[in-house]
Amino acid sequence: YAKSMKLSVETAARDLRHGFFSVKAKNLRCYQILIAHHADDQIETVLMNLCRGSGTTGLGGMKREAKMGKLTIIRPLLNVWRSEIDAYIEERGLKFREDASNATSEHVRNRVRNDLVPNLPEVFGRDPREAILRAAQLCREDAEFLGMVVDNLYRMTVTKSGALRFAKVESVEPISLKRRLIQRWLNENEVPDCGFAEAERVLSLMDIENGPAKVNLPGDWHARRRAGSLFLEAPKGS
Amino acid sequence: YAKSMKLSVETAARDLRHGFFSVKAKNLRCYQILIAHHADDQIETVLMNLCRGSGTTGLGGMKREAKMGKLTIIRPLLNVWRSEIDAYIEERGLKFREDASNATSEHVRNRVRNDLVPNLPEVFGRDPREAILRAAQLCREDAEFLGMVVDNLYRMTVTKSGALRFAKVESVEPISLKRRLIQRWLNENEVPDCGFAEAERVLSLMDIENGPAKVNLPGDWHARRRAGSLFLEAPKGS
Repeated sequence: YAKSMKLSVETAARDLRHGFFSVKAKNLRCYQILIAHHADDQIETVLMNLCRGSGTTGLGGMKREAKMGKLTIIRPLLNVWRSEIDAYIEERGLKFREDASNATSEHVRNRVRNDLVPNLPEVFGRDPREAILRAAQLCREDAEFLGMVVDNLYRMTVTKSGALRFAKVESVEPISLKRRLIQRWLNENEVPDCGFAEAERVLSLMDIENGPAKVNLPGDWHARRRAGSLFLEAPKGS
Repeated sequence: YAKSMKLSVETAARDLRHGFFSVKAKNLRCYQILIAHHADDQIETVLMNLCRGSGTTGLGGMKREAKMGKLTIIRPLLNVWRSEIDAYIEERGLKFREDASNATSEHVRNRVRNDLVPNLPEVFGRDPREAILRAAQLCREDAEFLGMVVDNLYRMTVTKSGALRFAKVESVEPISLKRRLIQRWLNENEVPDCGFAEAERVLSLMDIENGPAKVNLPGDWHARRRAGSLFLEAPKGS
């Protein structure tokens, strides 16, 4: 599926998962999905996003609530430590199932969990997990506000046909907002796998003298500059 | 000095350093100070700030340029790796001096440098330092924009006498901006050592029913709620 759709494995897996949940949700008339991610998962996500070069949004880690089409994903345990969950289960003699992929130590997340995080208290002279959780919350709050700002900008910049007005994009300052605006546009059009590099690539179209007139995007999408606007071209046959 | 001024050692040291540089700058008529912080220092700062619970501003790390009163602090080597500097020095047979405190391995920064950072490539399967540097840059850009937004809010909220109008503060959403607004006010008045906890403490004054009417701040400052505004009280004898 990933190969035929020219998607990353992560995005392809998310699409398929989304499809599965959507069908289940419709059958069961049940549009809220609770996910068991806990505070230790959040720490790992933040550290992984930092070492992947994510900005404020990524450093905010997972959200407590997220929309996925009609579905709402909720993570009620995001501020609860794994040890607290274990103690609760133990105390009440509850049954549980371990995700099989948790045991595979070859994955980055598992190395972060087993090798990096346990080492932090010695480095910092105290357990920094609560602090990392707070840093993530502050980033999430800032990202949320920036999202609101960009929503407004987007409404002012997009044309009826879904193109972006060149002059409007150009007037957006600073560069971080311009990048978010492009990302908002790519997300709105469901161009997959778009991050920093893709937004920068689209922004290179703004350089009329030296930039390209057309750039490639993941999933066989293209962005093009024409007649004072930026356009997206969907993959052929889609 | 720290003790008598009721300051943290870090802030006291910064004040004294600032005083020293100010005198030198005046004598030499030389208001720009170049500091040799390099990209590896930046990585350490970002990791330390994350594990200290800093938000977007702290995760942005050190700035390339910063104002310190009349002085401008410039860090021209902030995107250059230590190894590149070493190679340059070696190549040209330049003399240099090692900061004596670099050798003290008891400090957190040194443990981050010697124990944490060298371990990261193994955890992530590649050297994540470039990515961390980019994450910091994205945060710096976002923090810069948020700073501009808060500057505008501050001008609209502060009274001629330097108090903050209650109703105006209350209307600021989301909470992250409210906190930044308070921090802006505390910085403007040079209340020392003010971070997240201090901003939150001042915001507790906004709760008329259950909050306090006066809170303590570092350096013997106080914030007080009175007649629809928030006031700062300077330390006695200052």
